[in-house]
Amino acid sequence: MNIEPRTLKGFRDFLPESARKRNYVINALRKVFESFGFEPLETPVLEYEDILLGKYGDEGDKLMYRFTDNGERRVAMRYDQTVPLARVVAQFKNDLPMPFKRFQVSNVYRAENTQKGRFREFLQCDIDTVGVDSAAADAEIIQVVLMCLKTLGFKNYKISINDRKVFDGIAKEAIIAIDKLKKIGEEGVRQELSQKGQDVSVLEKVRTATPTPRIEEVLKIVGDQQVVFDPTLARGLDYYTGIIIEAEIEGYDAGSIGGGGRFNDLIGMFINESIPAVGFAFGFDRLMEALEESNLLKIDPSVTKVLVGIFSPELENEAIEAATKLRSKKINTELWLETDAKLEKQLKYAVKKKIPYLLLIGPEEKEKGMVTIKALDTRDQKTVTIEEAIQMIG
Amino acid sequence: MNIEPRTLKGFRDFLPESARKRNYVINALRKVFESFGFEPLETPVLEYEDILLGKYGDEGDKLMYRFTDNGERRVAMRYDQTVPLARVVAQFKNDLPMPFKRFQVSNVYRAENTQKGRFREFLQCDIDTVGVDSAAADAEIIQVVLMCLKTLGFKNYKISINDRKVFDGIAKEAIIAIDKLKKIGEEGVRQELSQKGQDVSVLEKVRTATPTPRIEEVLKIVGDQQVVFDPTLARGLDYYTGIIIEAEIEGYDAGSIGGGGRFNDLIGMFINESIPAVGFAFGFDRLMEALEESNLLKIDPSVTKVLVGIFSPELENEAIEAATKLRSKKINTELWLETDAKLEKQLKYAVKKKIPYLLLIGPEEKEKGMVTIKALDTRDQKTVTIEEAIQMIG
Repeated sequence: MNIEPRTLKGFRDFLPESARKRNYVINALRKVFESFGFEPLETPVLEYEDILLGKYGDEGDKLMYRFTDNGERRVAMRYDQTVPLARVVAQFKNDLPMPFKRFQVSNVYRAENTQKGRFREFLQCDIDTVGVDSAAADAEIIQVVLMCLKTLGFKNYKISINDRKVFDGIAKEAIIAIDKLKKIGEEGVRQELSQKGQDVSVLEKVRTATPTPRIEEVLKIVGDQQVVFDPTLARGLDYYTGIIIEAEIEGYDAGSIGGGGRFNDLIGMFINESIPAVGFAFGFDRLMEALEESNLLKIDPSVTKVLVGIFSPELENEAIEAATKLRSKKINTELWLETDAKLEKQLKYAVKKKIPYLLLIGPEEKEKGMVTIKALDTRDQKTVTIEEAIQMIG
Repeated sequence: MNIEPRTLKGFRDFLPESARKRNYVINALRKVFESFGFEPLETPVLEYEDILLGKYGDEGDKLMYRFTDNGERRVAMRYDQTVPLARVVAQFKNDLPMPFKRFQVSNVYRAENTQKGRFREFLQCDIDTVGVDSAAADAEIIQVVLMCLKTLGFKNYKISINDRKVFDGIAKEAIIAIDKLKKIGEEGVRQELSQKGQDVSVLEKVRTATPTPRIEEVLKIVGDQQVVFDPTLARGLDYYTGIIIEAEIEGYDAGSIGGGGRFNDLIGMFINESIPAVGFAFGFDRLMEALEESNLLKIDPSVTKVLVGIFSPELENEAIEAATKLRSKKINTELWLETDAKLEKQLKYAVKKKIPYLLLIGPEEKEKGMVTIKALDTRDQKTVTIEEAIQMIG
């Protein structure tokens, strides 16, 4: 009896083409993060349960993967990258430079309802600046996000910002209703407000709120028309204390591609000291989807530039030599790994893997000290020296 | 009451300096993998328990992280990258090119005894070639490993190879004893053999075994004196069926830095078809340790090339402009994020973060249209144009 090969609901394999696209985007983001001085951090996928529990509200506790390990410890899987960052800062405060600017790119785990197109293992790309509470720090996070979007090739996007202080004195239930404005419209919010016994006029009050001085300053530093103040923006997470940020791609309607904000009280849950922080997390799946829809993911169809085929068993050494030479010229080269395969099979493989060139050395080529190189898109082929072939491929 | 910030035994944070070193090595390996046509694959950290269970022997089942998820499914955390590969090949066989050459770089989880210097979350870097059973495929795996070691700067290393067929007809208990030859010596192995009621002469029989025809062919293709036949090499994992490979760095005695082999029967556990495969996994922690000991990890001390300080609040705009200009020239640049910090504090930060240069624009510099650039190793400083500063830093 075979074991049925299958994956858990909400968990995915990324086959090479998707994995390569993901790596391309991660590298692009990483370069932008580093250009602003953010450095990488890695944290474990498992934490003590009490580190994560209660930081994300009731919903978070419910969706968190938690279990008892072999040593009878209660453990939980990474639910976001912000709480682990807070834990790291509290734990290694004396070793870290302050401000501490870090990025983290890793998977997080939430037992979400997968019917909503959500995944249970998904990648987040976070940047955070810890240890400074200033408009410049808030603005820099936004500038990094802008630079990421530009670098990836997006032209039309919107970054909405707000200040949690706009909601001072407003009941949590009312804020939750107002946060749905985009989804359910004005009338919907009013209905929800009255259903929850809230004063309906609170919506108008919030909608007409003016930017706080901090937001004014941030807008001035950023100086970009695609960054706008939106007093109705709330975002769910409990831990924000100041600016809130949300990024959307125009024409991509599945939702925001990332969000963040200031969380000055989170680190204090682990340490008797208040350490301010601000950050942003890209939701990687939506970012990838928006890039695909905008046709901005133009990576090479294959990592391999050329397949060196094997004409016949006696000519294997010539093929090995050619492959070694191509690789020494920084050309990604695959060597066919059987000595007795039909050329047809080798050709089919190259086509399936979208390798642009096939190189072959038959008895005639060997005698002349030449190689035959075939471009697999046009099926044109030429017999040339290996140096000429390197020119053509490289 | 604060929650004590701490990590689980065997789980680690990687602060920026370590994380950057790790990324450097991962990228170096990835480039070599890609130069041979291996492409990336990602699989989930959680699998159905029955996919992983029983594939790694009793010890594996015992060390595996397993639990019941919120949906009452029995799940297990990734224990290696080979079984998930086998599952993927069985599941997506028709979509994958054959041979399928992939690499995977991700964490695996084992509830090991941490007193032995082992970790419970650790990175593996795997390459595997699926779908072809040939000496060329075996040899290519070794060539990739050799190229990785050379690229990383190692000079003296040894790759031992053997064929599981050398052990045909020998009891499993005897093989386990012989595998300990390096650790416990000849006398130790003999003792263990007799304790287990095995014929002691089996050791001599194995030690004097000659290479199988496949091993001869592999050695010939690879043609490297640092690759040697070792008939006593067994390696623990149950699923090997042909060649076995182990890589060691001379002078690094903590153990092998990776191993692998041929596993022609593993994929068949998921599918009614035999699909051959061969591969190798780098044990990343040992590789990093060997690199550190050999002083081969010479990365820039900081991702940031220059810190643009803030002389005074009125001169913030000048600093922002300079930082933007530096970044536009591909220079990783940090801007100080407070307008009222003492220069001493900014300088200390740059030194702590090992940033090589500090750039400042005071009132005099502003008037002259110049900047002052200070090299933080020598503490030399010069007042120059921004273009000259770019030349100096870049």
